[in-house]
Amino acid sequence: MKILITNDDGIHAPGLIALYEALSPLGEVTAIAPERPRSACGHAITLHKPLRLRPVEMLHGGRGFASNGTPADCVALGVSDHLGGLPDLVVSGINLGPNLGVDMSYSGTVAAAMEAAIGGLPSFAVSVASYQAAEFGPAAEFSHYLARQVVAHGLPRGTFLNVNVPAAPISEIAGLAVTRQGRLRYSNRIERRTDPRGGAYYWLTGERIDSSAQCGSDVDAVAHKRVSITPVCLDLTDEKLVADLPSWDLRWPQ
Amino acid sequence: MKILITNDDGIHAPGLIALYEALSPLGEVTAIAPERPRSACGHAITLHKPLRLRPVEMLHGGRGFASNGTPADCVALGVSDHLGGLPDLVVSGINLGPNLGVDMSYSGTVAAAMEAAIGGLPSFAVSVASYQAAEFGPAAEFSHYLARQVVAHGLPRGTFLNVNVPAAPISEIAGLAVTRQGRLRYSNRIERRTDPRGGAYYWLTGERIDSSAQCGSDVDAVAHKRVSITPVCLDLTDEKLVADLPSWDLRWPQ
Repeated sequence: MKILITNDDGIHAPGLIALYEALSPLGEVTAIAPERPRSACGHAITLHKPLRLRPVEMLHGGRGFASNGTPADCVALGVSDHLGGLPDLVVSGINLGPNLGVDMSYSGTVAAAMEAAIGGLPSFAVSVASYQAAEFGPAAEFSHYLARQVVAHGLPRGTFLNVNVPAAPISEIAGLAVTRQGRLRYSNRIERRTDPRGGAYYWLTGERIDSSAQCGSDVDAVAHKRVSITPVCLDLTDEKLVADLPSWDLRWPQ
Repeated sequence: MKILITNDDGIHAPGLIALYEALSPLGEVTAIAPERPRSACGHAITLHKPLRLRPVEMLHGGRGFASNGTPADCVALGVSDHLGGLPDLVVSGINLGPNLGVDMSYSGTVAAAMEAAIGGLPSFAVSVASYQAAEFGPAAEFSHYLARQVVAHGLPRGTFLNVNVPAAPISEIAGLAVTRQGRLRYSNRIERRTDPRGGAYYWLTGERIDSSAQCGSDVDAVAHKRVSITPVCLDLTDEKLVADLPSWDLRWPQ
């Protein structure tokens, strides 16, 4: 079995190395990841400059490449003919920090799994729900388990899984939950400061508004120390509004 | 009425200026857009460096700002207290080039409308379906019409509209279509080249696989010279797989 792994924390991130080690017993693992951290880069792709790949030795002499591209670029490179053809599975992570609720939209980690799904490949993104120097052991062990399950069962075309693992020892993890994307939001996102020359600058920040009371959500699962598995689809169509919009009686050109 | 506009082609793009002009009769329009083109930047946001805003004079002395951030950053700045508070409507565009099918996921234009929807504001993204120096007149005129409709009817929380206008004179446009996101894909995405020093580099490219036969899709509508309006939701959950995944009988830790 051929497995492609990537992330948005960069080729040297401990989470990627933990993932590499956990998946290696399952087959031939190739890591292609950004040469520098690319957190919150969303589903950015690089159209206006060339992409490069620099070989990097992974654990035990394994195969890795650092790229100047985004996580989605790394997947596009990794599934191309130039690197030996299609993998059987793409796994993105292990991200340092959760990717819950609306944060999925900003996440380069999640976008890499999405890019694989666009290409028709089974994939999942995996994050550990801590921003601190994390213990990746439980998430790595779960990634190994889930990789086997995904390959055994397959995934419907146009879907992938977004996984968040609580930052806790395995003994404290209270099982798995199949979840829906939560409604995590932010308030007061912009902080204004003044530079030494009197000019204004701004930091994107914000306080999380957790809707953790929302039963069945990814946010709720992780708050209760369960591994959250959210099935994600590529189709963004809002079916309810497709049905309702004709009542607006739009006519144009008039 | 206060309207915030942005785009991913940059503050000086003709499509933004056409949008500014078209919406100005409806109220006070503020443009906040990237200082340089940021096409295909997806829903990237800037967390690791400060954001700046530089005042730019728009048409007729109107209010504009160039930012070093992404389109989503521009919306976050534009809805903050520091620029006079919440707008009543956010419009992103007019993008030079269509944002159909899976391209919606890569689009900075669409991500800006999504960012507004995350903040609870009514919004839409608008693109003209041509990569050539476009005639923005029809798309600008339609944006004026749709802005009035969106403000009159409101949009459900967590949704926004993705609009694609055919590259044709108004007289040739065959009306409107409420559509679903199509299944546009790419094949052979990576082209390998060799630089003057013998090193390999790669271009992201690819041939479009149009599923334009897919009736009711955005791709199909634009191919038939209709303005495509796709209702988009923020929730990416795949409900079918939420229902099916428990049949996998996942158990972990074991």
